[in-house]
This record gives sequence, C-alpha cells and structure tokens, in this order.
Amino acid sequence: MSTQNSVAIALTPGPTTAPAPAAPGVTHSKLDNGMEIVVIPDPRTPVVTHMVWYKNGSADDPLGKSGIAHFLEHLMFKGTKEHPQGAFSNLVAELGGQENAFTGYDYTAYFQRIGKEHLETLMRFESDRMTNLVLSDEVVGPEREVVLEERRMRVDNDPGAQLDETLQATLFAHHPYGTPIIGWNHEIEELSREDALAYYTRFYTPENAILIVAGDVVARDVEALAAQTYGKIPARAQAPSRRRPQEPPPRAVRMVTLADEKVEQPSHERIFVVPSYTTAAPGEAEALDVLAHMLGGGPASVLYETLVGEEKLAVSVGAYYMGSALDDTRFYVFATPAEGVELKNLDIALDRVLAKFIATKISEEDLRRAKTRMIADAVYARDSQVSLARWYGEALATGLAVKDVADWPDRIEAVTGAAITEAAREWLDKKRSVTGFLLPKEAVDA
Amino acid sequence: MSTQNSVAIALTPGPTTAPAPAAPGVTHSKLDNGMEIVVIPDPRTPVVTHMVWYKNGSADDPLGKSGIAHFLEHLMFKGTKEHPQGAFSNLVAELGGQENAFTGYDYTAYFQRIGKEHLETLMRFESDRMTNLVLSDEVVGPEREVVLEERRMRVDNDPGAQLDETLQATLFAHHPYGTPIIGWNHEIEELSREDALAYYTRFYTPENAILIVAGDVVARDVEALAAQTYGKIPARAQAPSRRRPQEPPPRAVRMVTLADEKVEQPSHERIFVVPSYTTAAPGEAEALDVLAHMLGGGPASVLYETLVGEEKLAVSVGAYYMGSALDDTRFYVFATPAEGVELKNLDIALDRVLAKFIATKISEEDLRRAKTRMIADAVYARDSQVSLARWYGEALATGLAVKDVADWPDRIEAVTGAAITEAAREWLDKKRSVTGFLLPKEAVDA
Repeated sequence: MSTQNSVAIALTPGPTTAPAPAAPGVTHSKLDNGMEIVVIPDPRTPVVTHMVWYKNGSADDPLGKSGIAHFLEHLMFKGTKEHPQGAFSNLVAELGGQENAFTGYDYTAYFQRIGKEHLETLMRFESDRMTNLVLSDEVVGPEREVVLEERRMRVDNDPGAQLDETLQATLFAHHPYGTPIIGWNHEIEELSREDALAYYTRFYTPENAILIVAGDVVARDVEALAAQTYGKIPARAQAPSRRRPQEPPPRAVRMVTLADEKVEQPSHERIFVVPSYTTAAPGEAEALDVLAHMLGGGPASVLYETLVGEEKLAVSVGAYYMGSALDDTRFYVFATPAEGVELKNLDIALDRVLAKFIATKISEEDLRRAKTRMIADAVYARDSQVSLARWYGEALATGLAVKDVADWPDRIEAVTGAAITEAAREWLDKKRSVTGFLLPKEAVDA
Repeated sequence: MSTQNSVAIALTPGPTTAPAPAAPGVTHSKLDNGMEIVVIPDPRTPVVTHMVWYKNGSADDPLGKSGIAHFLEHLMFKGTKEHPQGAFSNLVAELGGQENAFTGYDYTAYFQRIGKEHLETLMRFESDRMTNLVLSDEVVGPEREVVLEERRMRVDNDPGAQLDETLQATLFAHHPYGTPIIGWNHEIEELSREDALAYYTRFYTPENAILIVAGDVVARDVEALAAQTYGKIPARAQAPSRRRPQEPPPRAVRMVTLADEKVEQPSHERIFVVPSYTTAAPGEAEALDVLAHMLGGGPASVLYETLVGEEKLAVSVGAYYMGSALDDTRFYVFATPAEGVELKNLDIALDRVLAKFIATKISEEDLRRAKTRMIADAVYARDSQVSLARWYGEALATGLAVKDVADWPDRIEAVTGAAITEAAREWLDKKRSVTGFLLPKEAVDA
C-alpha cells in the first residue's frame, strides 16, 4: 500500500521535536464540535499541507492492548462506505499528492501534501474516515499480519532496536512510555476488529482532533471549508480522557546489556527521565534543550570535543532532548566507541565529562553559540512547510499552545548559564537514568 | 489496631511458598454461591484456623490505582453496620484468639486462630464483612495516611527495599508483578473511598473467595456452618476476571545499582523470570524447585560450598524459587560478599558456578539429598496448622487444585537430574534476569 507508517524510534534523534519559531499570521480556532483548526500561511508555493492530529498515541493504548494506536493507523486506510479501500490513497496519487501517517507516544497523525485547489477534496475524504470507517474481519486479520511483519523487520532482526525496547521498558517503571509504540508482539497478535473499533470510537472524535493546514491559504477560507466537512461530525459529550499512570521517583542506577552476533559496531547510550516542555517548570525545558545542544549538538559540543577530539575514546557522540511529550520524557546521550575502547571505559569517561560540566561555569560565548545555532536550525527547518505544520501539530497534541511555539525563540534566548548548570545537576542525575551497552556476541563470551 | 498487615517482601525467602504434602482427609467443596471450602482435619488441638482467601492481589490493581488491594485489606477492619469498627478484632481478642491479614501479588487473605467452639462466630463476622463493609471518608483518609506511613517505614527508609522495588520493576517490563504490593506512593495518595468501594464490589464476592478451615473439625459440620453464614451471600453472575498483561520475551541483561549511606553491608542479588507451578509445563516447576535447593538451599548447596566454602568470596549465599504465582514468577539467587570482595567479582564467580553446574552431570546422591531435605522440610512445616492452611490457600488462589498439593511429594520424587540441568540451562539464562548491587554510598564515589 502507499501508506508509509512511521513509528517514531526514540533512538534516532532528529530536529523535529524542537519547537519552531512561529510563522507570522498563524491562526488557531475551533469548530462548534470542538475540533481545533490551525492555519499556517505559506504563500511561496501553490501547495498545501493538510494534517489531522488525534490527541492519542501509544501511551494511551488500553492495558494489554499495546499497539492498538499504531494498528488503527494502518486500519484507517481500509476505507469507508462511501470511499472503499484504496479510494482515498488513489485519489491523492492521481492528483499528484503525497500522503503519510504516523503514530507517536502521544498522538496519531494523518497528512497529505497536494495542490491547493484540492484542499476541499482532502477534507471531505479525511472527515469521512474520521467517523465512517468500515472494518471487517477479512481486512483486520491480514493487516495484523502486516504489522507483525513490520515488527519482525524492525525489532526482531535489529539488536539495536531490541536494546532500545528494553532500555525504555527499564527506564519507565510504570508509565506507558516504556511500552513500544508498535506494541508487544504477543499483544498485537490478539488485537481484534472489536478492539480496533472500540479504540476508534473512543478517540476518533472531533473534540480529540486538530486540523493543521499550511500553504497559500487564507484562514477564513480554510475554516469555512472545515465547517462544511469536519463540522458536520457531531460533537461527543467531551474529549476522551488520556490519564496515564505516572512514574515513581527513580532511585537506582540501571544498566542493560545486549550482545548479539548481528552487532557490527558496539554502541553506548544513556537515557534520563526529565521534564518535557509540557511538564517542566517555567524555563526548565528550555534549559534542557540548550543543555542537549551544548553537551552533544555537533563537533563543537562538550562531549564531542572531549571524548572524540581530546581523548579519542569515541568516534561519535551526541545528546538529544525529546522535549515534545505530554508527560515526563527522555534526555539521551549516546556514543560510538573508538576501535578497541571498552564501553565501560567510555561510560566512566562520560560520567567524568558530565560531572566536570556541572562543576564548571558556562562561558557566555559558548552559551551564545549554542543558542544561535539552535534558533538558526529552527529557522532553517521552518523553511519546510511540512516541518512547520508538524511542529504545530506536535505542540498542540502534547498540550502546548500556538503561543508556546511562537515565543520559543524568546524563551531560548532567556536561558542563563546558571539555569543550564542547574538543569544538568538536577536532571542528569545517574539515578534517573538507564545505560545501554550494545555489543557483538564474542565480546561477552570473551 | 490489632491487625498485622504483612506485605510479602519478595526478598525474604521462606518455606511458605513450597506446596506441602497433603494432609489426610482434606476435603474441597463449593457452596451454591460459588465460594470454595477446604477443610483440613487436624485433631491434635481444640483450636481452629479460619481463613478466607480472595483471588485478587496487587497484580489485579487497576492501572493507576496501585496499592488498592493492600489498602482495602486495611479498610476491611473498619467495620460494618452490624459490627462497627473494632468489634470483630475486639471479639477475637476477648475470645483468646489471634487474627491477621495479608496481601500478596495474587491474593488477599484474612485469618483467625481461635478455640474451635467459636468457629461459627468467626464465620458470622467474616461473612458479614465480605458484603456489608461500611466506608466513610472520615475512615478512609486517616487509614490512607497509615498506609503511606507504612510505605515510608518499609521502603523509603530502607535502601534494600528500594533496590528491590527497582529490581522488580526492571525485571517485569509489562506484567504488574513489577509494581510493589503496597503500591507507588503517588498513587496511594490518590486512592479514594470510591476506589476502595469499586474494588470491594468487584472482588469481594463469594465466587472469588476460598474458605479454609483447619482444626479438630468435621467437613460436614464446617460446610453446614458455612452454608448458614457465607452461603447467605447471593452469587454474582460470575467470578471477577483477573486478566493481566503478560511479559514480552526478555532479551537483554539488566543490572541495577543502588548506593546509599544507610547501607552497612553490600549485597548481591539476581532474579530470573521463570514459570510458576501454575504456568510451567509438567515437571518443570518441580525441577526449578529442586534446582533452587541444590543451588542455594543451605550449607551443602553448590553455591554455598563453592562461593562461601572454597573460594571465600561470600559469607552467605542462597537461592529461592517463588513457585506459587498465577503467572510467570521469580527465581532468586542472592549473596553477601566476604569482607573486601567487590560485588562485580562475586557476580562473575556466580556466572561461573552456574555455567559449571549446567555443564556437570548431577550425581544421584546430591539429587537424593536435595529431595529428602525438601520433603522433610515440608513435613516439618505441615506440623503447623496455620502453615498447612496457608499452603492450601496459596495453591488454590493461584489456580492449583487440592490434588496438586496432595501429590507434590510424588512429583518432587519424580524429578530427574537431567530435568534439573535442563531447567537451569533454559531458565537461568542471564537474558531472563536482572542483577542488583546494594552498596554503601562511598563505594560508588570512590
């Protein structure tokens, strides 16, 4: 099928989770049935990006039904009474457009990119499948096999992905972020048509959805089209609840080792539980964001200069703050050891660099450089209509507001060196972390 | 209050989870409302043990309501309309009896020990609180503080208990055995009167209860008394479901380190996920049980002889199979290092001893000695009326039958050396385990 279902793999840091600077003229409104509408003017091309975000992701999977959010994302391409399986995707292709869908921990989103004259058509089709999805056992069974095969390919054949699943499960004692987005194999196997429909009925409601349209459009027109399409779906009593069990305070240092003959390159990773942009105290998430850049954002970063440059213990090293999350989230530090360097020694060196970073006053020059690069990266990424739309979707789906995206550069500018040191001291506490070693099989047998 | 609420601490191995040899004349019947009755004749004293077991424990706590099983155990002493708070406990004390209650992962139980002439009175009071519990906010709020204080005393002040909580949470990626019986502090704080009543209504039903009476009694009489008391409680449609999410296959070696200034004696522990008596293939649980005894059941065991006796790396070492569990369970190996021995070296030595054990044919003499000791221990423990009653309760509450208790010695006798080696090879796989290091604070800073 033409859908690309992308499961966010937490190990792959990317720029997409940092909020973008606001585009001028972004509007945020609501239909009577509760559906949110964000319009992002982008007059540069006659193409629009059309996205619907649902405020439910894998962390909202009912207990014992892990993978249902992602499975339903697949099933959303199975057609409605009016538009049978394939009709929507074929139409998008015929009109020269692209489509995609993805499931995250906190949201599920569907999007298309197409000539702006087709926006209404997209809205008609997308609003249709928000409420009229038809699922038969004949369709659900084979698609479950597709998902199981996807899991086999992505996880069962990849020791790094297996390690990552164990790391996340170890890091989160209680919160569902510890469960893989795609689900545990034995639970995917049991997902039924009834499970999918119950989930669909619970979460695919206008009150739970956000429409994002970016392109050469006028907010008034988009809102009118949305009212004629999405607006026809009746409101439910209220948006579905997404209350999740929260973590107990972490108390012990954890470590996971996976050795497999398929591993060609050992690697080291440490993940800390830290506040997200949604859960942090004012300024704290911004400090963590700058901290990640200073520690591991490229060759000028502290970890890179020390471990790769000076000490030659690693060939690569990085840090990444997964700031977009409804609940407390992850801060990653990861490294690939230099030839012959034991992971254990790399681990000790990492502890040392972090301790020294916390003990050393941050220079104004380093701070300025990090902020300038972060904001420049964001400006650059904003140049992509899809990235820009995605930032707004991600922010709103994780409990932030349009304003939070808009004033993000100001808040980054306001971060002080002292706040970064304090964030590192408070949150990069080893007790809050799990460390992963990925090793070739023979290294453990030796 | 006079109740002793004992939370099973998994770290404390004891003989109570091994099934006992059957006592002669044990009967098993059912009331019309579904309540099971087990009568264990014990004519030696004029005292009876009266227990009611509910087939729900902490692993059945609803998501986000951890600790509710244990909290309700406390609240069950708060009185009914007919017997206000304290009436039942005072009566038991006045009649010269003892009472207790305990919450496990798989069950909650209430018991009294009293002169046999008072059995009917106990049944009247116990059946009353099975269905007529009265809970007010005035009673629930202060009792929640009692539980929170219990948690503070047992866990927050005890680094070993903190390590154990993290070990269990790490070992179980998905199954609720990873959540402490007493619950996570932040969830206990939120448990309300409504939560307690909803839980009580769901689980405290005759179909979900087992009555165990041991003593100088006749089954017919006990059943008649039970019918007049418990039998009056109407049946529900069906027993409550206790479906729990199951574990994904373990894939990586995990390790947890906790260092605290309160630690005076370092210790080492490894826990493997293994089948329980309920989930194992025929003979497998018995092999694991004998394996635990051969590896770490006293000074003549393999681990003790090697690590304490020959190599002087440890001052104590043991192994323990927690065979009684509804789902896959734990196999523990634990050691206290000798003065000056690093836990890391003890850990390596343990790996070596286990590998050698698996590679070596078990001698008939060693096997005979282990079985004889196990069965003798069980016969000895059976001498206690309470232990005997508890074995039956535990077995039935975890899905076994009276017969499983009765023929346990025969099944232990049937275990072969090859089966034990195979159980060790299959289940004591390091990937199935988590290892815990408990250290004094300075050892980590060094």
